[in-house]
Amino acid sequence: MKYINGDNPYGVKIPYIFVTNGGGKTEEERCIDLSRQLQIEISPGQFICGHTPIREMSDAYQTVLVVGGEGEKCRVVAEDYGFKDVVTPGDIIKSKHDTTPFRKLTEEEYRNSRERNFDESTIDAIFVFADSRDWAGDQQIILDLLMSKDGRLGTRSETFDEGPPIYFSHNDIVWSTSHKHSRIGMGALRTSVEALYKELTGKELTTVAFGKPQLGTFGFATRLLREWRKETYGIDKPPATVYFVGDTPESDIRGTNEYNHISDTDWFSILVKTGVYQDDKTPQFPPREICEDVLEAVKFAAQRELGEDW
Amino acid sequence: MKYINGDNPYGVKIPYIFVTNGGGKTEEERCIDLSRQLQIEISPGQFICGHTPIREMSDAYQTVLVVGGEGEKCRVVAEDYGFKDVVTPGDIIKSKHDTTPFRKLTEEEYRNSRERNFDESTIDAIFVFADSRDWAGDQQIILDLLMSKDGRLGTRSETFDEGPPIYFSHNDIVWSTSHKHSRIGMGALRTSVEALYKELTGKELTTVAFGKPQLGTFGFATRLLREWRKETYGIDKPPATVYFVGDTPESDIRGTNEYNHISDTDWFSILVKTGVYQDDKTPQFPPREICEDVLEAVKFAAQRELGEDW
Repeated sequence: MKYINGDNPYGVKIPYIFVTNGGGKTEEERCIDLSRQLQIEISPGQFICGHTPIREMSDAYQTVLVVGGEGEKCRVVAEDYGFKDVVTPGDIIKSKHDTTPFRKLTEEEYRNSRERNFDESTIDAIFVFADSRDWAGDQQIILDLLMSKDGRLGTRSETFDEGPPIYFSHNDIVWSTSHKHSRIGMGALRTSVEALYKELTGKELTTVAFGKPQLGTFGFATRLLREWRKETYGIDKPPATVYFVGDTPESDIRGTNEYNHISDTDWFSILVKTGVYQDDKTPQFPPREICEDVLEAVKFAAQRELGEDW
Repeated sequence: MKYINGDNPYGVKIPYIFVTNGGGKTEEERCIDLSRQLQIEISPGQFICGHTPIREMSDAYQTVLVVGGEGEKCRVVAEDYGFKDVVTPGDIIKSKHDTTPFRKLTEEEYRNSRERNFDESTIDAIFVFADSRDWAGDQQIILDLLMSKDGRLGTRSETFDEGPPIYFSHNDIVWSTSHKHSRIGMGALRTSVEALYKELTGKELTTVAFGKPQLGTFGFATRLLREWRKETYGIDKPPATVYFVGDTPESDIRGTNEYNHISDTDWFSILVKTGVYQDDKTPQFPPREICEDVLEAVKFAAQRELGEDW
């Protein structure tokens, strides 16, 4: 990372931003994590989480169900975003124990969950903020709400078009971990919810996912990058080229390539091999360049901009 | 139940058998449960679990993965069935901790699970015996195997047609519990696995489900009923009519009606209201009769056989 902060042969500083998934944390927390990991200071002003656009929706819905993450973390994030009345699956199970036949709350979950009369509550929207720790229970509750009349638990719509909308903070089917093969993630839960809704109701479910490869995320990134260049580097014009370095073809590369088609700026996709990449397979969404890791990608971009002998 | 054991105005004994899901128990255990609940003696000879046909497959596969149920119960059932080498998801997680990023074994699960070198093991078939308690982890492991070369964990097929077969002991999408609305069950897990396999590989997955409404189960029931009539009542001919009493249209009624089309015997479907039945909805698979409960169904059948004044 020293290269992009100016410690390079030309002393050139390269403006950059991060576009990443949230993992059930606020942007501020993720910035602190990343700053520690990378040993450079990263500001929330140069950081987009998958769920960042959800912040703008906190006025639109009164009561929301927030799914995913460890313990109460996602409730805290949602309240920090300005949502006024945040419900978790734990609240629903605590209030009605037989909601999920095989899922029992731990003592800590029971203590933190908030009992209420859900017969008198209307849930206006469902947000999957982070990876579900309990697929069966969370999907049961999600499906109960999607099939309800106006988000009232305990009711069933006859037409199956009266439930609340559901939003996923990102759509990565798989993600890279210490395991040799990538693991299923939030996009897989989305696929499962859609398939079960179809099976139970005979109808197609419309779900919304934020994050990559959604083009809105890249538009958001463009605005953020422009502000960051202006405030930090005093440059008040759009960049000629944006290098987007990512490890996942389906989200990073696909989104970059598609956004490039509609953008005046040249969005240049670089795939790094440190994630789900496999040497013997051609990615379904091919990048314009493949590099070993992020440092090599930065060097490649700098050389392409500044010349071969950089 | 007194009615069908002969304590009725005509002193007529009516031969009957049970066709049910297993819940991760052996036929013997389920018979003991049912005998206690119903206060009559029920013999394994008049009892079919969803997974009973799996018993006949224990010679066909050397090493099998068994999914579902509490703790070690399904391993015990599978070993009781004659399977020689039974692996659980717990064994795989104990041997490779990062298999499932968000699932940690409890102390008891860790103690009971059996560590081994899965790089040197070939898993020949997958059996979902009972409801999964960990949808995300179990599906990750199932998908790893389905996408493997010849059931070797850690490998990935390039053609995605080299994995082991997968069997589900029944296919009920929903089941009836104390909750007002039916809850998602094993058939829902099957739907999810199929949808995720399609999403990850682009290919359709062929899965096999036992139990109702599969016609093989009704054929099995016919053989059992015939043996039971012969041994217990000394009647050595097929019945003219079989009354099939069930609470779930999608499995009980559908299977009975379809089997009736191909059987010489008249299979007569009766839906009882004590399960997923809802008064205001017409079942997708309509029964020939609807009764309040099993006793009313037995009375109905007896009257239909023996006359109105019975």
